Amino acid sequence: MSGDDKQFMEQIVCEGDIGYLAFTSDEPYVIPLNYAYCNGRILFHCALEGRKLDLIRAHPTVCMAVARQEGHPTPHAGDACDNPFESVLCWGTARVIDDLDERQTILNEFQVRYDTPDHKREPISRERTEKCGAVEIVVTRMTGRKVGGKAKVRWEWEEE
Amino acid sequence: MSGDDKQFMEQIVCEGDIGYLAFTSDEPYVIPLNYAYCNGRILFHCALEGRKLDLIRAHPTVCMAVARQEGHPTPHAGDACDNPFESVLCWGTARVIDDLDERQTILNEFQVRYDTPDHKREPISRERTEKCGAVEIVVTRMTGRKVGGKAKVRWEWEEE
Repeated sequence: MSGDDKQFMEQIVCEGDIGYLAFTSDEPYVIPLNYAYCNGRILFHCALEGRKLDLIRAHPTVCMAVARQEGHPTPHAGDACDNPFESVLCWGTARVIDDLDERQTILNEFQVRYDTPDHKREPISRERTEKCGAVEIVVTRMTGRKVGGKAKVRWEWEEE
Repeated sequence: MSGDDKQFMEQIVCEGDIGYLAFTSDEPYVIPLNYAYCNGRILFHCALEGRKLDLIRAHPTVCMAVARQEGHPTPHAGDACDNPFESVLCWGTARVIDDLDERQTILNEFQVRYDTPDHKREPISRERTEKCGAVEIVVTRMTGRKVGGKAKVRWEWEEE
């Protein structure tokens, strides 16, 4: 467990496009979503109501997975998997952002994540903020692994 | 709810490479894995022991998400998300395959999923079967959605 471990995992989370968020619920439930990772927080926007917001309000502990691999899995059986594959799990506490000022700030942070020279993001107006929900997850623990060739690396980080 | 719905969702699941599997557990937990989808079953291989096998043995109900999108999310706020995005959630009952004959068959089904002309898969030997775990998930319910432009489509299927 080291600062380097966290850095490797944060890079994978920052570069990912789709996170898969699992909730604390009686029935297993996981949803794909676009997110932004900023300063130890996972941010996403959503509708103003719905199942995921109800679940977060009831039980704020969540787990989000991000993974990437090169090409298809290579043939193997019994031998270790050796397809280049990196994955990170982030556990944390989610919060539905009800305050409009805070929500506007978070929606702007989310926008910036996907800013590109040819797709410039406009700042989010108050009017639009009122129509769009937002959630912030404060990440308190991460585990990650990287498999490639015969090498396996495991990473860990936990808030002190 | 119709046969067409199931067909659209099965296509997305068949074409996906990484599934994100959530478990029935006190702590939210989701892991990325390569899988094969064959005849209403999700198949994956794994180590012979570990947390996910313990969880499945304790509570076999699982949920797996598969998603894909084109490019980065487009700018929006308040307006509907209109980035092309397709996702499917599959619920089902998972079973750790202890019987070696059955496991060998399932590992071979998994291999075939990733067969390509230039990466021909060898049949799995009994010796290799003994070293590699396998899990089968019988899918009993699926929901899916497709977002693109201003169109939103939702799919549903449940075993009768």
